[in-house]
Amino acid sequence: MSARTTRVGLLGCGVVGSGFVELLMREQSRIAARHGVALELGRILVRDGEKVRRHVDPRAVTTNAIDVLDGDCDVVVELVGGVECAGAYVRRAIRNGRDVVTANKALLAAAGRELFDAADRSGVAIGFEASVCGGIPIVRALQRGLAGDSVESLRGIVNGTSNYILSRMEDGLELDEALRLAQERGFAEADPSMDLDGVDAAQKLRILASLAFEEPIVATTVRGIREITRADIDDARASGVVIRHVASVTRVAGGVALRVAPERLTASDPLARVRDENNAVVIHGRAVGELLFLGRGAGSMPTAAAVLSDVIEIARSRRTAA
Amino acid sequence: MSARTTRVGLLGCGVVGSGFVELLMREQSRIAARHGVALELGRILVRDGEKVRRHVDPRAVTTNAIDVLDGDCDVVVELVGGVECAGAYVRRAIRNGRDVVTANKALLAAAGRELFDAADRSGVAIGFEASVCGGIPIVRALQRGLAGDSVESLRGIVNGTSNYILSRMEDGLELDEALRLAQERGFAEADPSMDLDGVDAAQKLRILASLAFEEPIVATTVRGIREITRADIDDARASGVVIRHVASVTRVAGGVALRVAPERLTASDPLARVRDENNAVVIHGRAVGELLFLGRGAGSMPTAAAVLSDVIEIARSRRTAA
Repeated sequence: MSARTTRVGLLGCGVVGSGFVELLMREQSRIAARHGVALELGRILVRDGEKVRRHVDPRAVTTNAIDVLDGDCDVVVELVGGVECAGAYVRRAIRNGRDVVTANKALLAAAGRELFDAADRSGVAIGFEASVCGGIPIVRALQRGLAGDSVESLRGIVNGTSNYILSRMEDGLELDEALRLAQERGFAEADPSMDLDGVDAAQKLRILASLAFEEPIVATTVRGIREITRADIDDARASGVVIRHVASVTRVAGGVALRVAPERLTASDPLARVRDENNAVVIHGRAVGELLFLGRGAGSMPTAAAVLSDVIEIARSRRTAA
Repeated sequence: MSARTTRVGLLGCGVVGSGFVELLMREQSRIAARHGVALELGRILVRDGEKVRRHVDPRAVTTNAIDVLDGDCDVVVELVGGVECAGAYVRRAIRNGRDVVTANKALLAAAGRELFDAADRSGVAIGFEASVCGGIPIVRALQRGLAGDSVESLRGIVNGTSNYILSRMEDGLELDEALRLAQERGFAEADPSMDLDGVDAAQKLRILASLAFEEPIVATTVRGIREITRADIDDARASGVVIRHVASVTRVAGGVALRVAPERLTASDPLARVRDENNAVVIHGRAVGELLFLGRGAGSMPTAAAVLSDVIEIARSRRTAA
């Protein structure tokens, strides 16, 4: 068991990226003792090279992605977001034989198949636990923990911002006030229409569906919470139900159908009790029955923890292969 | 990617073992397509060689464990339970270079450290997802999904029989009537005192604690539900609380303390809502915050699904190593 050092190159040092740096510094020695892997932070791509960042060695910082991608790192952590640049970076990392960890659901929704095929050909791994439901280890649960079972259905609350907004509207706020609060607390997407129109939830649901079902996606319905008013919330309350933004996959003729939409849920529904920025996923397995996973779906540190767990798993498999 | 066949030898064909055989038959082709591994059932150790079993080829059956352990299998699935025989079988399997999958929490609680060390020396794996919380992939969550984070606390309901009995007592039954129902439904331990005295829960908690915390266990408190009466249940209801059998780990001076005991929980406690034979674990991670995992903690098929998921993971790593 060699404690070979794994060098981590980081692309992006925003909300999640800076959380990742902080967490890596904090957990480094525990990770070495517990998991037998030595992690070392290499170069860090930032937008503004002059900005002073806590926990970040200024000499590691670069504004040129090539310094990270063609440098001496073993794993590239992609946290720049978006599809164009991030996609180019990830492709280059894979070509260079680097393992990749990403939290970028938009990129995976747009080009996941191509990237996973490229990774297979290059013999590298892509970790993407952080792309769905933040700190909840749902990707691993579907890939590994439920490998022995057939998933019959999957539904969840996968956009923390929408759920936070609905929770605040239940407290009496209007939608735009609630959105402002979510933005202040730092877990709304940069472009809030991704949250409000259900696009973010649909991207995550697509990833979950591809993990849980073999069948092709033959239909997709996407509706966000933008049309929900205080009157709807009050009306729901008067009827003894709550409104939640639900993402679900169901089997239909020829494949599976994805649906993202506000739904009225009775109190007995496990998703009805999910409040604030939490996420939850309910999986019905043919053998295991109903499983519920609940936790923080957004935020700097929960997402950073998921990224770091992927990095550790890759480092462990490198150690085994060494 | 070679689709090398992995041969599975099975020790024990009782409640979980027969579920495992059924599930393996049912999922075999999906597993091959999805995970790229071909699983094949080898010899099966049974107590009664004459008994006719659904899904089981009588020619595979043997009453001699050596036929399984020294035969041509790659993975040994240990489902005989108990400590003495099961321990001898697992040690021999490890010496023979077989990977092992077990649901045997008593064995792991008694000899886990020794067995994991032996497995390390032999370069084989021990999968034990099924030993705790049946179909909930909590072992993987702690080993992998939360690898990047420090666990601050862990508490849960890990004995499905106790929770089932408490749920039935809330419906008006006496403890012994509720126990009989649990036994009829097939999820009480063979020796119900393991459930009723908290020993089963303590064994599982010990496994979870060793996964979640680096610190040594310096104190253990174990109390079962045997002393709980209908009067306690009624009194709790009158006070607006519910009684649940809670297993928890807390940090104390010099290490961690394990506690298994009936507790009075308010309605806002996520464990208060866990009913019937369900299990749940609440983990508080320093970075990820609170995570809840909920699902069936007992029963033939949920446990079999956890066993099969471990077998698949081992088969996948054999493929990679090939």
